[in-house]
Amino acid sequence: MKGNSTLKGVSLLAGVILLAAGSAHADQTLRDRANAIFKPVPEEVTEIRGKQVIAEQVELGHKLWFETRLSRSHLISCNTCHNLSIGGGDNVQVSIGHGWQKGPRNNPTVLNAVFNAAQFWDGRAADLKEQAEGPLQAAVEMNNTPERIEETLNSIPEYVDEFTQVFGGDNPVSFDNAAQALAAFETTLITPNAPFDQFLKGDDEALTDLQKKGLGAFMDTGCVACHNGVNLGGQAYFPFGVVKRPGADVLPLEDKGRFAVTSTATDEYVFRASPLRNVALTPPYFHSGEVWDLEQAVAIMGDSQLGRELAPDDIEAITAFLQSLTGDQPQVTLPILPASTAATPRPDDEVITETREALNQ
Amino acid sequence: MKGNSTLKGVSLLAGVILLAAGSAHADQTLRDRANAIFKPVPEEVTEIRGKQVIAEQVELGHKLWFETRLSRSHLISCNTCHNLSIGGGDNVQVSIGHGWQKGPRNNPTVLNAVFNAAQFWDGRAADLKEQAEGPLQAAVEMNNTPERIEETLNSIPEYVDEFTQVFGGDNPVSFDNAAQALAAFETTLITPNAPFDQFLKGDDEALTDLQKKGLGAFMDTGCVACHNGVNLGGQAYFPFGVVKRPGADVLPLEDKGRFAVTSTATDEYVFRASPLRNVALTPPYFHSGEVWDLEQAVAIMGDSQLGRELAPDDIEAITAFLQSLTGDQPQVTLPILPASTAATPRPDDEVITETREALNQ
Repeated sequence: MKGNSTLKGVSLLAGVILLAAGSAHADQTLRDRANAIFKPVPEEVTEIRGKQVIAEQVELGHKLWFETRLSRSHLISCNTCHNLSIGGGDNVQVSIGHGWQKGPRNNPTVLNAVFNAAQFWDGRAADLKEQAEGPLQAAVEMNNTPERIEETLNSIPEYVDEFTQVFGGDNPVSFDNAAQALAAFETTLITPNAPFDQFLKGDDEALTDLQKKGLGAFMDTGCVACHNGVNLGGQAYFPFGVVKRPGADVLPLEDKGRFAVTSTATDEYVFRASPLRNVALTPPYFHSGEVWDLEQAVAIMGDSQLGRELAPDDIEAITAFLQSLTGDQPQVTLPILPASTAATPRPDDEVITETREALNQ
Repeated sequence: MKGNSTLKGVSLLAGVILLAAGSAHADQTLRDRANAIFKPVPEEVTEIRGKQVIAEQVELGHKLWFETRLSRSHLISCNTCHNLSIGGGDNVQVSIGHGWQKGPRNNPTVLNAVFNAAQFWDGRAADLKEQAEGPLQAAVEMNNTPERIEETLNSIPEYVDEFTQVFGGDNPVSFDNAAQALAAFETTLITPNAPFDQFLKGDDEALTDLQKKGLGAFMDTGCVACHNGVNLGGQAYFPFGVVKRPGADVLPLEDKGRFAVTSTATDEYVFRASPLRNVALTPPYFHSGEVWDLEQAVAIMGDSQLGRELAPDDIEAITAFLQSLTGDQPQVTLPILPASTAATPRPDDEVITETREALNQ
């Protein structure tokens, strides 16, 4: 009996080892497939498109990020809508800015935006610098002008000194340089070390079994056709409704997406594939911000983009996988900003809507 | 000749030493007078009114300070109007909150508020905790209710855990405890080490000659009757216009100040003497926020409170002295806040003004 039970024990142990080996093998296969499609978020960004990130620009951009005087009202900073405490967005349907006016689209997170091929839902800004120039001027956001921003910065000696040191040249305190500094700071707003990235790098334990199943389903069902690369999206443009157009509640008819940028008929209702890093932190979803539940968003994507009704357990698994995309959030200190002077333009909270062009998300 | 010039040198040196001794003596006299009236900001606040400050409450309050979900819109946090990057206020005439509505009075800084005898311009909140309960509920500020705030916090497991750890008891996640945590955090928002404090502690070089002259004038002309103690104000109530009522541009007739709190005729147009710490960082001035220039504010005070037209060089010197009240600003890290859940009340940006009472500055 004892011999038999020992034999049983050995064979059980062997079975466990075989299972573990099989599981480790399955994990490695999943990892190999995933590594061919995705890339981890790096620990640091040292250059953008071949240009070195300059530490002094980052430092200045850090101040400007929290600088409410970049807005006409002196109440709104970049961080108001791209709130670094809550995933780099604002978690409302559409952003609310100057005069409590609403923007036309849901606010994309600034986190990892440096890895996107272009910025905004319609990709109309080629890079972070061009993007930064938008909200500063948008009537419904910060409602300012390049001239007023330059006048403001020039009225504050500490900024004049710092812009001069950082940029030099004939006209260091420029709107252009302010946007450049903001873009430099944004290269630091990345979220490495997500469980998914740990898995990509070889840690089998970083994902739960459900998340691994979800990763498999994410690849098998075709999500990766649009959501790939380091940001699982943000690289190219696709019609919302590749296969089946969603209802007007989720896809409002009046917002034709990239068509407004290219005036090309085939770009109607075309948007940049959403980057999915930290997606669990940034409800509500889609450019319309109409969907608050991540599982519902996954189901809508299956329906509209892949033309298939995803099984409930696939939706559950894919959603669990998406939860694994939350990385280490950037640790940011609140800067102490230099004081205004008598020459600083006073805050102006008046709502003027007549002429200024909206330059929103 | 050489002997003579040596003698001249010696007598010159003796003169310089005597002058220095005289100046050091004058500085010490000024310091002794000042130390009888004022107190430096301490490096740390370890208790409020006999109650120990609890580190865990401070840590929770740090999160809540930046928690936009304490507002109905999910857009406004304490830091929106009490911006720690710019002196703990908002540097606009009157604060702008929910629905871009304006508050009735200029925003007092949160910095060193722990040292005030009572909070708000009319002193209607006895302490920081009672104060914190105001803006959370004010229709024109965060526009929330205690019930909705408790529902929000209870919907987020990380908050439930932290409130339970910090407060224990039957109902740890309460509006009351949230206000208590905010008050605890605010005890850290102090600004020690201002040049004036360095002078009080014995450093003759900490103030310029003009600032010393200004300190003398501040004491001699009677400013100190109201502006004394650690905060140079914030301790008692006085009519705006002790001697001569300022014009309605600076003192609007409809805001009767402390009268609204006490319903006592003698409290008409009575306000708490403004604390003057960091005053150079917090324009515009007075409860009406009508005056942007600190020299002009000093002149108005001389006229309305002391009944005398201050000489231009006294105004200049007193203003220079007030600049010496800017201390080390608190270094604060932006907290990473826990994510909402399906049970978290959604943001509501609708402007409802009918019933809720305004509980402003």
